[in-house]
Amino acid sequence: MNHYDIVVIGCGAAGYNTAIRASQLGLAVACVERASNVGGAAIQTDCIPSRLLLHASEVYETALAGRYARIGIDGVPTLNLSQMMTYKGTAIESMAKSAYTLLGRHGVTVIQGHATLAGAGCVVINGGDHVPPMLSATTIVIATGSEPIPLPSVAFDHQSVLHSADALSLDRVPRHLAIVGAGAVGVELGSIWRRLGSRVTLIERRERICYWLDRDIALTFQRALRQQGIGIQLQTEVVGIDKTSDGVSLRLRTPASGEATTFDAEMALVAIGRRPSTAGLNLASVGMHVNDGGSLRMHPGPATKPRGIWVVGDAAAGPMSMSKAEEEAIACAEQIAGLPGFVNYAAIPSVLHTTPEVAMIGKTEDELRETGIPYRVGYCPLSATARSAICGASEGSVKLLVDARTNLIAGAHLIGAGAAELVSQVAVAMEASMICEDFARICHPYPTSAEALRQAAMAAGGWMMRA
Amino acid sequence: MNHYDIVVIGCGAAGYNTAIRASQLGLAVACVERASNVGGAAIQTDCIPSRLLLHASEVYETALAGRYARIGIDGVPTLNLSQMMTYKGTAIESMAKSAYTLLGRHGVTVIQGHATLAGAGCVVINGGDHVPPMLSATTIVIATGSEPIPLPSVAFDHQSVLHSADALSLDRVPRHLAIVGAGAVGVELGSIWRRLGSRVTLIERRERICYWLDRDIALTFQRALRQQGIGIQLQTEVVGIDKTSDGVSLRLRTPASGEATTFDAEMALVAIGRRPSTAGLNLASVGMHVNDGGSLRMHPGPATKPRGIWVVGDAAAGPMSMSKAEEEAIACAEQIAGLPGFVNYAAIPSVLHTTPEVAMIGKTEDELRETGIPYRVGYCPLSATARSAICGASEGSVKLLVDARTNLIAGAHLIGAGAAELVSQVAVAMEASMICEDFARICHPYPTSAEALRQAAMAAGGWMMRA
Repeated sequence: MNHYDIVVIGCGAAGYNTAIRASQLGLAVACVERASNVGGAAIQTDCIPSRLLLHASEVYETALAGRYARIGIDGVPTLNLSQMMTYKGTAIESMAKSAYTLLGRHGVTVIQGHATLAGAGCVVINGGDHVPPMLSATTIVIATGSEPIPLPSVAFDHQSVLHSADALSLDRVPRHLAIVGAGAVGVELGSIWRRLGSRVTLIERRERICYWLDRDIALTFQRALRQQGIGIQLQTEVVGIDKTSDGVSLRLRTPASGEATTFDAEMALVAIGRRPSTAGLNLASVGMHVNDGGSLRMHPGPATKPRGIWVVGDAAAGPMSMSKAEEEAIACAEQIAGLPGFVNYAAIPSVLHTTPEVAMIGKTEDELRETGIPYRVGYCPLSATARSAICGASEGSVKLLVDARTNLIAGAHLIGAGAAELVSQVAVAMEASMICEDFARICHPYPTSAEALRQAAMAAGGWMMRA
Repeated sequence: MNHYDIVVIGCGAAGYNTAIRASQLGLAVACVERASNVGGAAIQTDCIPSRLLLHASEVYETALAGRYARIGIDGVPTLNLSQMMTYKGTAIESMAKSAYTLLGRHGVTVIQGHATLAGAGCVVINGGDHVPPMLSATTIVIATGSEPIPLPSVAFDHQSVLHSADALSLDRVPRHLAIVGAGAVGVELGSIWRRLGSRVTLIERRERICYWLDRDIALTFQRALRQQGIGIQLQTEVVGIDKTSDGVSLRLRTPASGEATTFDAEMALVAIGRRPSTAGLNLASVGMHVNDGGSLRMHPGPATKPRGIWVVGDAAAGPMSMSKAEEEAIACAEQIAGLPGFVNYAAIPSVLHTTPEVAMIGKTEDELRETGIPYRVGYCPLSATARSAICGASEGSVKLLVDARTNLIAGAHLIGAGAAELVSQVAVAMEASMICEDFARICHPYPTSAEALRQAAMAAGGWMMRA
């Protein structure tokens, strides 16, 4: 039986980052992956595939909408979906290969197979060709990621009832795609297929899309998606999906009417959330179980962790994002190695790579109000920057929320081109505990979108110069 | 004679920002502009026009090079130069109009005409329709900007011997454009016309292009431009330009051979630098004159300023950039209003909107070596980020220089897609005196180019995770 300091179960974002960081700190690490390639949902099935198609479909739409013609570039683009999917596949393959190479370079042993816990410090590998099929570990890290949640009593058939990975691998553009759930997956995948020519309808049970976003931003975003032609049906529950001769029929219920109606489409993408992927782990053998929220918990520190088992990434509680997974991975490895390790959950940015792009960090206005924290708002429309006129992308804005008691930045909410890259600048300011007045003094290159952040900080101090 | 607290001469970036900030602080401000529109070189003739054509030509080239076909978008683009110039003109007009509106909204009086100093506190307006043509001012701010320097004894004829503004308004693509000087204007305008189909040759008297850049970055950039087909002739002096039947003939001298050769092209763009635009100001009337470096100086503080005259932006000493102009404008207005005002010249970023994009802030390696400051290098290729694979832009890197005595960031040098937006993040860290180890701990959204900065900071600490 081979012994490792750490056996990591799952080789997605949480797993490979834990393995690499632990290995850097001198620990002997094995990483067990059940799929044929490393990368998990981040690289293989969800995050990266979605970003690849978002990028390609955005370029396609920009060309198609005549926005290139306006800047002096004539020509009518045609979609080559099979080539687009090839580009996606090639990029994924290359990224997975890089991740695999990286693991090897850091001295991490990657083992293919299904891992099952067999009591404290023991992991059994099934279905791979690893000999011996049993590993001993001082510490086990569960990084098994997540999987899409199906609707109750509606199984994914991968043809007309799809999960996110299915919807990222279609070989034709659906005539009409109904999407159950207007969260990150819903709006991103809806954007892709709408741009490529589908009629898209989002059906959401809450009263607005992307409920975690600052209300203003969510409503602006919702308006923008509708303007693009995406149908959005709010406060509507999908209680079932029936197959029809030419697609699917969704059974809907709205709390207002209480009555059931139906909604026909060619395909239905079910994007109501994800749950930790823990099947087959045999958690009971180590006395663990999935909690009410559906997730395992990452233990806050060595003193409290039972039986040397840690949980990181989507399998652990909290928002399911690659960024959060990466932070937990680093902190987990450092704590196992006896170093201080810490995740500042208050400063993890989240982004949507849609058009307009959306990014946020810290608190929303509603959260500040609910907790009674007095705040000031610094608002700057992107149209106040020269960059937006250059790129023809004047839609959007930056909103900084400043704690009125301390002048520290409490949150930032960005919508519009470049939002995902800009939000890190606020992360730096927040982690540095920089007061808003100092942030307003940062010199930016001209012309950039980043200037909007400075102007918003000026606005919070009452001296915005570009408005 | 109307009296103002401040009369600002020139309504470009330095001028309008001084006027707006001073007005915010309760001062009565007039801004005199000799051109028919506000905006100066920043909006009207140089910075923005160049960025507009850089953007449009980049999209054109990306399409032409088949990079859209690779991601599934077929179609052959054709150039419509006249439409591209219309787009440029429309955008400039709209930005100038916005700036004019902004000045009005802040209560700044804009006066059209040529301003001449007539002794302390007195400005005469010539050639406009302002009545009376004389203004009295407690403080005068000279913000007259800069103009291109011609080659000795070679006048701009705007047909075959061009300055930057000429070269941004051509109505056809030159067959062969020779550019004298491989600084910011040379590489940016050379990039535009090369992408649009010209043969382009840069002729530079120094031993490398863009001498102010970190040496590594400059050499990488030089290689990239050559790979794109731009000819670069280094250590070559242009001693004259003769007109020929079908263009121009440049007389060259290389220090090595000492012999004169000639080089023929259709047009020559002279981009050897800019000088403060002070003609007609009648500086002598207030006892001022242009110094040896060709520039006026901004007075460091109220105590030392003679006769209530300030100089900001390109007319003052220092690098000619919109960012520096804006900082000086704000500091100048605040000091005039009796507030503390300060320009941190050590943290002004500079960017080139070329392909690859280039951005820098702080010290170069050569500067650190020359001043004997011990430093560590944190290097991350952009190809280590998932974003670069998504956008098909894996060229480039991020280099952080860390002062080994303090762990503070001493400089950052970026080359590649997104560099201009990313550098502000380093500006925040530098202004916050954040040590590199803390910078390496900032959580970034995934997948973004900004992650490269974090990885570079990790690299400086010896724990880069993506290499």
